[in-house]
Amino acid sequence: MSSPFNVAEIHIGVVGLGLMGSSIVAALLIAGHPVKAVAPIPADSLEADERIFNQLKQCEEAGLIANAENYWQLLTISEDYAILKSCHVVIECVIEDVDIKSVVYQKITSVVSPDCIVSSNTSAIPISTLQRYVSYPERFLGIHWAEPAFMTRFLEITCGNLTSPEKANHILDLAHCWGKEPTLLKKDIRGFITNRLMYAVYREIFHQLEQGNATPEDLDKAFRYDAGSWMTLMGIFRRMDYSGFKDFDTILNTVFPELSNSTTVPRLMQQMVQQDARGVHNNKGLYPYEGEEGKQWEEAFTRFNLDICQLAADYSADKLNLK
Amino acid sequence: MSSPFNVAEIHIGVVGLGLMGSSIVAALLIAGHPVKAVAPIPADSLEADERIFNQLKQCEEAGLIANAENYWQLLTISEDYAILKSCHVVIECVIEDVDIKSVVYQKITSVVSPDCIVSSNTSAIPISTLQRYVSYPERFLGIHWAEPAFMTRFLEITCGNLTSPEKANHILDLAHCWGKEPTLLKKDIRGFITNRLMYAVYREIFHQLEQGNATPEDLDKAFRYDAGSWMTLMGIFRRMDYSGFKDFDTILNTVFPELSNSTTVPRLMQQMVQQDARGVHNNKGLYPYEGEEGKQWEEAFTRFNLDICQLAADYSADKLNLK
Repeated sequence: MSSPFNVAEIHIGVVGLGLMGSSIVAALLIAGHPVKAVAPIPADSLEADERIFNQLKQCEEAGLIANAENYWQLLTISEDYAILKSCHVVIECVIEDVDIKSVVYQKITSVVSPDCIVSSNTSAIPISTLQRYVSYPERFLGIHWAEPAFMTRFLEITCGNLTSPEKANHILDLAHCWGKEPTLLKKDIRGFITNRLMYAVYREIFHQLEQGNATPEDLDKAFRYDAGSWMTLMGIFRRMDYSGFKDFDTILNTVFPELSNSTTVPRLMQQMVQQDARGVHNNKGLYPYEGEEGKQWEEAFTRFNLDICQLAADYSADKLNLK
Repeated sequence: MSSPFNVAEIHIGVVGLGLMGSSIVAALLIAGHPVKAVAPIPADSLEADERIFNQLKQCEEAGLIANAENYWQLLTISEDYAILKSCHVVIECVIEDVDIKSVVYQKITSVVSPDCIVSSNTSAIPISTLQRYVSYPERFLGIHWAEPAFMTRFLEITCGNLTSPEKANHILDLAHCWGKEPTLLKKDIRGFITNRLMYAVYREIFHQLEQGNATPEDLDKAFRYDAGSWMTLMGIFRRMDYSGFKDFDTILNTVFPELSNSTTVPRLMQQMVQQDARGVHNNKGLYPYEGEEGKQWEEAFTRFNLDICQLAADYSADKLNLK
């Protein structure tokens, strides 16, 4: 695939080396970028280095790269923001706290050049809010990754009020070198695109559950085996084109007024939050988990993710020769 | 897999041999049932026979069955409802018109025994409405299949007001012999489960499109590569257990009041209906189609469907050894 970019010459910075940050570093390394990674929490530094190496090994085993060591050598980790000086793009992945992020942006922008693109992986704070803390704010935008970043095709680029469309389009182009299918959100609505659409599902699915119309297992199954059977190939609008529009006006006219318009958090969700339910991670969630079950779900997801990612690649626009 | 049923002795009737009816016949044949198929439209009879044979061949090529001919021999097609006499279950798949369906039910019930389960594949008419036209209405329920029925794991069983829970549970058990992951909807809400949840997505996605926040392509991509990357494995509630519930109360409290509560059909959808847009089937839809593109999408979906169905089977509860 020809590309207008020479990725080996484009240095990318990542600040914050928790789970997500490490995963993004691995994604950028396998794309061929030299990566400058800053660990603001010193303890993260060593742990992240090992984690990233293991992720590269995972990519090697999956056949995504030839030799993990070669890619690992493109990585520099430090606690010192000065390593970001050469960067063309910096991605911030620290915790979801505006005060902490604003300090991080100050440290980044005091080192990089004024035309370096500065971005956040946030999924919780509006880009327009964060943008206020960045000098030359037109260069600031959201780059939202899915977990694990090195093995998912999703990438959401979000503009704040002040973001320059050219900067956003530049990242959109670059993201193709990262093996992504990037999407551009022109306005930073809450929840961005997918989460926003999923929240609409949450509102209705909890409503159905509260009405006692079906069990949680059955509600999940319906989504897994119906929506799941076309989702990765089509998305929503293409699926409509596949079904055709006959009687859709009558159906939507009937159903829309019956959908939940609730503005409050479902009681079951409140209980989960109060119980500090971390689901498969602490065996406390909507489903019961015993012993190693939570862990087994995590492992299953890692395997599934590779499988679905390869399946998605087999049906990419290039392969299908379809728009 | 041991089963309490001897499928070879359970005769199943199908009335209506359009695309969906044929596909359901093929699904029941590969499960091992003798199938009695009634073609109320005489012209359907020959065409359906050939279509069903080709579908069985497709299952043979996919390795789902050993020999298409052997399964085909279990099929009887006739215009005469009398062939339904021996049936344990009859599935009606005629067009979505209450008057036509009510006549069909009368013809079915005049032949079968009073304890024969009578069902409809309807996705548009409430089961409680149809139930009124069936003698011994407690034996009537919805059995809603996904297309192609012989190669999807989805099956939705819907109770009307008068449906006997035992009859519904009996079909639920039997559906496991059909290679399905059946779900039970205890009350016949409009749109049943998946469609209902998808309509909630439709409401929000058209809202985002109308606001100009993202292109249709990007809205689709977000769903394909984000939601699509976990949907088949997890469904909605399991996904929540995977993500954990931290800050979910705050997020939903903020987002729910911002979601669309529209009760009217989106203008773009109205236009599609007025233009008789049948999407990939007449190259008229939300996306532009030229020449063979619509057809290529149909072919891609046939291939994808087999792939995702096999992937889903690899991650079934049995295989994962997880609930």
